[in-house]
Amino acid sequence: MAPRYAPSLRSRLAPLLLFLQIGFIVIYVFYTEIESNVKVHGNTFSNFYPEFQDVNVMVILGFGFLGTFLVRYGFSGTGFNLLVAAVATQWAVILNGIDSWYYRGKIRINLRSLVDAEMCAASALISIGAVLGKTNPVHLVLMALLEVSGFVLNEWLLHTLLKVGPLKDMRLHIFGAFFGLMITWILHRNGSEKQFEKEKFDRKTGLFSMLGTLFLWMFWPSFNSVLVDAHTPGRKLGAVCSTYLALAVSAVTAAALSVLLSPKGKVNLIHMQSCILAGGVAVGVSISGVHQPWEAMTIGFTAAVVSTIGFRYLKNHMLLAFQCHDTCAILSTHGLPGLLGWLAQLLLQIRDCDDHTTAIRFAVFHICTVLITVSLSVSMGIITGLLLKWNFWRPPQDKKCFDDQAFWEFPHLAACK
Amino acid sequence: MAPRYAPSLRSRLAPLLLFLQIGFIVIYVFYTEIESNVKVHGNTFSNFYPEFQDVNVMVILGFGFLGTFLVRYGFSGTGFNLLVAAVATQWAVILNGIDSWYYRGKIRINLRSLVDAEMCAASALISIGAVLGKTNPVHLVLMALLEVSGFVLNEWLLHTLLKVGPLKDMRLHIFGAFFGLMITWILHRNGSEKQFEKEKFDRKTGLFSMLGTLFLWMFWPSFNSVLVDAHTPGRKLGAVCSTYLALAVSAVTAAALSVLLSPKGKVNLIHMQSCILAGGVAVGVSISGVHQPWEAMTIGFTAAVVSTIGFRYLKNHMLLAFQCHDTCAILSTHGLPGLLGWLAQLLLQIRDCDDHTTAIRFAVFHICTVLITVSLSVSMGIITGLLLKWNFWRPPQDKKCFDDQAFWEFPHLAACK
Amino acid sequence: MAPRYAPSLRSRLAPLLLFLQIGFIVIYVFYTEIESNVKVHGNTFSNFYPEFQDVNVMVILGFGFLGTFLVRYGFSGTGFNLLVAAVATQWAVILNGIDSWYYRGKIRINLRSLVDAEMCAASALISIGAVLGKTNPVHLVLMALLEVSGFVLNEWLLHTLLKVGPLKDMRLHIFGAFFGLMITWILHRNGSEKQFEKEKFDRKTGLFSMLGTLFLWMFWPSFNSVLVDAHTPGRKLGAVCSTYLALAVSAVTAAALSVLLSPKGKVNLIHMQSCILAGGVAVGVSISGVHQPWEAMTIGFTAAVVSTIGFRYLKNHMLLAFQCHDTCAILSTHGLPGLLGWLAQLLLQIRDCDDHTTAIRFAVFHICTVLITVSLSVSMGIITGLLLKWNFWRPPQDKKCFDDQAFWEFPHLAACK
Repeated sequence: MAPRYAPSLRSRLAPLLLFLQIGFIVIYVFYTEIESNVKVHGNTFSNFYPEFQDVNVMVILGFGFLGTFLVRYGFSGTGFNLLVAAVATQWAVILNGIDSWYYRGKIRINLRSLVDAEMCAASALISIGAVLGKTNPVHLVLMALLEVSGFVLNEWLLHTLLKVGPLKDMRLHIFGAFFGLMITWILHRNGSEKQFEKEKFDRKTGLFSMLGTLFLWMFWPSFNSVLVDAHTPGRKLGAVCSTYLALAVSAVTAAALSVLLSPKGKVNLIHMQSCILAGGVAVGVSISGVHQPWEAMTIGFTAAVVSTIGFRYLKNHMLLAFQCHDTCAILSTHGLPGLLGWLAQLLLQIRDCDDHTTAIRFAVFHICTVLITVSLSVSMGIITGLLLKWNFWRPPQDKKCFDDQAFWEFPHLAACK
Repeated sequence: MAPRYAPSLRSRLAPLLLFLQIGFIVIYVFYTEIESNVKVHGNTFSNFYPEFQDVNVMVILGFGFLGTFLVRYGFSGTGFNLLVAAVATQWAVILNGIDSWYYRGKIRINLRSLVDAEMCAASALISIGAVLGKTNPVHLVLMALLEVSGFVLNEWLLHTLLKVGPLKDMRLHIFGAFFGLMITWILHRNGSEKQFEKEKFDRKTGLFSMLGTLFLWMFWPSFNSVLVDAHTPGRKLGAVCSTYLALAVSAVTAAALSVLLSPKGKVNLIHMQSCILAGGVAVGVSISGVHQPWEAMTIGFTAAVVSTIGFRYLKNHMLLAFQCHDTCAILSTHGLPGLLGWLAQLLLQIRDCDDHTTAIRFAVFHICTVLITVSLSVSMGIITGLLLKWNFWRPPQDKKCFDDQAFWEFPHLAACK
Repeated sequence: MAPRYAPSLRSRLAPLLLFLQIGFIVIYVFYTEIESNVKVHGNTFSNFYPEFQDVNVMVILGFGFLGTFLVRYGFSGTGFNLLVAAVATQWAVILNGIDSWYYRGKIRINLRSLVDAEMCAASALISIGAVLGKTNPVHLVLMALLEVSGFVLNEWLLHTLLKVGPLKDMRLHIFGAFFGLMITWILHRNGSEKQFEKEKFDRKTGLFSMLGTLFLWMFWPSFNSVLVDAHTPGRKLGAVCSTYLALAVSAVTAAALSVLLSPKGKVNLIHMQSCILAGGVAVGVSISGVHQPWEAMTIGFTAAVVSTIGFRYLKNHMLLAFQCHDTCAILSTHGLPGLLGWLAQLLLQIRDCDDHTTAIRFAVFHICTVLITVSLSVSMGIITGLLLKWNFWRPPQDKKCFDDQAFWEFPHLAACK
């Protein structure tokens, strides 16, 4: 094969996907059943289904179109997102159900277990944002499998060691962000310190990616409230209103800072798209500590400031100083706002504690939680990165990075601008 | 009029639409009323409304943007879809209500009757997929009216002759697909064995069509569960989970097979878009027989395999051998998966039967159902096709096929790429 | 600064937004709390949340993408829409809550108050449609603040003087339309009687704007029913079905009239997009008087006729005769259908009255309502327009109108077609 063509994935991707899919079906034959009891955790079907669909829309459409801003990489951005989400969700249902399988012999599938699985898939999709355009779908599928495994292991560790409750939101953003950053650091290509030639957006791809962003922005209240126990509807309502306000504040603040930080006083659409979501991330992490509207709004404000400054300055510094190229700036979008939310929760919970002992105990537990999460995420990321560095997986050449033509048929090339 | 201009539809489309619309209003004046009782078939308003909206989104947005992949036919794909859906829904409400009009003197309009009507409209929109780009809106509206009439007649026949229940899902896909195929066969244009010049997609139209596909994919669980009786919420939950799993399996399998069948090991976006939906079609048809997750997943796997192979090889063969040009490949997307789902339901139901007599009786009934559906669909399709062949309807010239300029104003042509 | 560059907004937009945002947070610290009682006006959280999300999708995504049809103004259309919606919603929560603050010391935030605030934001977004492309974001934010204030003042006046109920739908469209028209009239630029050079759409922007339109069209039933009291679920169901039918009729009628009025018998996509929504506007205004399906359908039919004729002829006449350039034709889309719906409600309510006295009293009240709304809207619009005419706000130059480059960074200009 002449070197100017991208390496064919026929002998890698097809067997991998078929093997995984048939394997999943075999596992599901023996170990799963569909829940017959329709009321789970206080949710009836018709109460829970709309929120389930909101999360589904965020994972499939929101993350999928968020990644379409690259001018020649739109098909991959949305197509591989769907592929990875479908693989990761099936895998996460199995891993999340090991406990239930151990005690009852069967994994019960219901809307709740599907939402849990989609949350794990979302975590994998976040890490994929860091390597978007520089990997092939085989990499992405392997990454997703290992990320989901690591994330579920992290949940299990925290639950076993620290008796931490099952609210996944915080760990999702932090775990996904650091996992992805490690992989893109390991996979760094020499000579790519200067920007890739095709890593840019145009008038139309900016709008496609705005579409994905808006779906994430609109349904983020569902994302943060879906796992709140329905036995306390007041908490659920609080989570929705807090997230809504934090997002509104984020949108205004991100626009203001984007103008302020630009020498010409112009807004950058891609910056703004990431940073308006920062409030949702941060308030999601700290949701159990937020009781007043202004707390949510202040968290949203700070998150947008941190995220906008991070996107404007940190992304390039990361590349030059650490050789870590972060395509979708997941550090500024998910990593830093996640840590900020974690800090906000620490402060808010300590304020609410009655005595010093409880406060200190909580602080220690809370700090341990984030330390375990970050270290597991970093170490799993490094291991996964080293595995993916293997040339057996046929990585795309530098010239074919950020280009759909390496993976997608264009039957009428003349028509493709 | 010089031959190079497309024939004007002013004297055909406007009178037809105004006549239909005023006619509908007159019929509604005398024979309809809005339901005052808010609890129908065990559904309260607020339980049913979100599912109703999901189906509405699928019919208007999903089918509408699915048809935007043609590079110069996007306005028609989505605009005529809306027009046809609006006409077909109003017509289907009347036809579906004849029974209720006969017994009670009035057709009651509620969310359930609107969903039933949208299902009929979906069936018409499926058949329109086969002739997309080669017809004008007058053709499409007439086709939709006759398709909906045929479909409702089919339901009535099956209900009267075989006492078959009112679950429409199976017949919808099969009826729509064969009806559309017959029409495109009859309307075949000589010399169009080689592909039409403008029948291609580009980077941006592929993304628009991906958007429609994703909405169909995400909300397909609502489509399959919306007509399940709410008195058995366990069945509804089962339908949602089964469809979700079948779709996830379809997505992975379609990607794998698309790579495997491509000589260069690349995925075709348009193939993948159709084939990831095959699992939803097949499991929808067999939903009453599916009780275990793996059954749904196996059906999804097989449907994706059949659909991908069908799209890759069958579409061209159909054109060369039978002179049947199928724009959106509805045979592979709806026809074959529909028949596969029918077969799966036959096998699953026979397995669940206790004795031979019941099994054989069920098999005979089930086979009769599909035979009646297919023959009515084929014969209605042929009749409709012959009617549409009439030059009075001013069909678009060959050169103007797949081109919006025949029907849509572009005030600033220079700006239109 | 050379005259060919657009004036930088750094010293205007950033301080304004930061001041507003920090001000809002300070106000929220002292005067708001999140509702702890989950059942408000008969709505439980899970019953109300899906409708809330539908309205949210309409305001953020629907209006946002409706404004993307301008070929070089897509980023502004959707980005500034989000910015304005986020500012206007926070401001409207405060203004709507003054009453509750006066009696209880705190403004309670719940889904209902957020929906009320989004309705006010929608009203501001409608007026922004008239000046789209000819203003900068500073103008838009100031306009939104004053529009929301005027709208809330109008509600308070009507409630205090005429004891009119709180159903906002009618006033929203009429108030927004006339407010916006006054501003665009005051801001008129000499020499812009002929069309702006960049005020046009192309194949792709037409589809983006179709996307926004379809979301508005699909979720309009939620918009009209969300504020109907949940204690009377029959009324809610009636509002949904009436709006659905009116929209379907509008879609068919708008297509028919667009073809009929075009000399070449072609449809104009942008006309059709506005006019299919007219039925939703008109029936929303008259919803409390509509009891039969045909009433809704007739209103939808008339609204589409008025709106299509208005778009085809009135827009240019307005420009030539009154020097009033209306970018999104909000007069035909919201103004005229709103007044038509008001007239329909007058006629329907008078018909339902038992005696003459009640009918005349209702008519007088109803006419006063619209007179107060229109005069307040016009006078507030003129005041706002005069304020915005001040050069301190750095209006875009004529050459930079309808162009994203005045406000948005394009890091890779070569890539931007």
